[in-house]
Amino acid sequence: MAGTNSERELLAEGPAIILVEPQLGENIGMVARAMANFGLAELRLVNPRDGWPSEKAQAAAAKADHVIEGTKVFATLEEAVADLNFVYATTARQRDGFKQVRSPVVAAETLRQRFVAGEKTGILFGRERWGLTNEEVALADEIVTFPVNPAFASLNIAQAVLLMSYEWMKSGMEDVAATPFQAVDQKPATKEQLFGFFEQIEEALDARNYFHPPTKVPKMIDNLRAVLSRPGFTEPEISVLRGVITSLDQFARRWKKGEAPAKQTGKGHGDGADEE
Amino acid sequence: MAGTNSERELLAEGPAIILVEPQLGENIGMVARAMANFGLAELRLVNPRDGWPSEKAQAAAAKADHVIEGTKVFATLEEAVADLNFVYATTARQRDGFKQVRSPVVAAETLRQRFVAGEKTGILFGRERWGLTNEEVALADEIVTFPVNPAFASLNIAQAVLLMSYEWMKSGMEDVAATPFQAVDQKPATKEQLFGFFEQIEEALDARNYFHPPTKVPKMIDNLRAVLSRPGFTEPEISVLRGVITSLDQFARRWKKGEAPAKQTGKGHGDGADEE
Repeated sequence: MAGTNSERELLAEGPAIILVEPQLGENIGMVARAMANFGLAELRLVNPRDGWPSEKAQAAAAKADHVIEGTKVFATLEEAVADLNFVYATTARQRDGFKQVRSPVVAAETLRQRFVAGEKTGILFGRERWGLTNEEVALADEIVTFPVNPAFASLNIAQAVLLMSYEWMKSGMEDVAATPFQAVDQKPATKEQLFGFFEQIEEALDARNYFHPPTKVPKMIDNLRAVLSRPGFTEPEISVLRGVITSLDQFARRWKKGEAPAKQTGKGHGDGADEE
Repeated sequence: MAGTNSERELLAEGPAIILVEPQLGENIGMVARAMANFGLAELRLVNPRDGWPSEKAQAAAAKADHVIEGTKVFATLEEAVADLNFVYATTARQRDGFKQVRSPVVAAETLRQRFVAGEKTGILFGRERWGLTNEEVALADEIVTFPVNPAFASLNIAQAVLLMSYEWMKSGMEDVAATPFQAVDQKPATKEQLFGFFEQIEEALDARNYFHPPTKVPKMIDNLRAVLSRPGFTEPEISVLRGVITSLDQFARRWKKGEAPAKQTGKGHGDGADEE
């Protein structure tokens, strides 16, 4: 569930999100939530139709209280951007003006560079039904637009804010391949460990006359070792697999097929390395 | 407003989006809309709480009818992924298993490579309240997780689907800086055009004794030319500016300040290149 967690760092910096004449409190709340998800905090409203504060916005914000409480309301767009140095306008349609058009990735990188340089920036989002007027776009420095399905191009404002907020967050990462948590760190197996596993499984198979006829034995061993080599098993994975072979290597089943007294999950993953 | 447009290409390919035990029809509808926005079309539901079809989903889908109509329902996750070759599980929290954890960018690139190679792929999204179980995550090949504000980390499923769909769309672009439309193409000005503008403005200023005292004239001209050079004006921009100077260069105002008979916008942008 959504919520703030006082033990974890609360990111709250970066461009102001400026909603021009938003109509529904729910949308304002979802915008606040999207901003909070990706570390933005400064929300400005120009002439919101249903006034401010808004209970519907509060409810839809899913505890993004720091964004909702800090929201500022302005009578005009000119006042809302007065203290900013650089402003993007979001729009889904081509305008006649001279302004440069940027992708969200490029816009976020530009906003990040200006943020690092100490500039104040903002991003304009238009009304639910028809976006920004040409006069409003003209107040911005550049345009940002989203790469969308040509036949289904319209994003709602909460979605558009989510994507720009997400790109803002990514623009601050050294590496877009980084993740907030990683797989459990596993030591790669050594060749000795892999060969030990080959030896175990081949011995158990040999005891059951698997390698037959003798002329095919070298090829069978080749194939088996290729199958077991390709995944590049880690040390704990080899440990899991050796436990499986040890169990299968018992002389007889304890129960006949389909008669096990308790359900066996059949999923080896995550069973730990203590099976051998 | 959202809607399909038969004149424009409808993208409908790529990984299946698989919602495990979704509760609210509204969320399923918003997922369908997000998928349509970024060219995905194959929605699968595992055991949806309120059944299927859903009027609420249809309403929230904002005319993503091709997604809603093609939605398939499965009793179990195993059945829902049975025909797929490679599956990601989305999760916001670290799991104990051995699975690799990927960022959305890397996951989308992997899905794109597998799509190009003819594989069928899917992405799992968990329940609204508590996501996917460990057993469900275990059915996937790898994990994908989002870079979020540590203190405000929870995305709703429509937001999570939106981000993965957006990254899927971007993974098919040659250049993430590309935009669906561009600024009006403008010829860069030649130096001759720039120098002609210098000459015009300097002559008009000289006629008003702007360049004063004589010892400072070279520095004043240097500074003025530096200000006018830095923006790298295009040919139509120079044309607009020459029109402005021509107008200002009239000997007298036609009306006193504040007495203009009609409001002047004062915004030179976008006024066209026919002013000179």
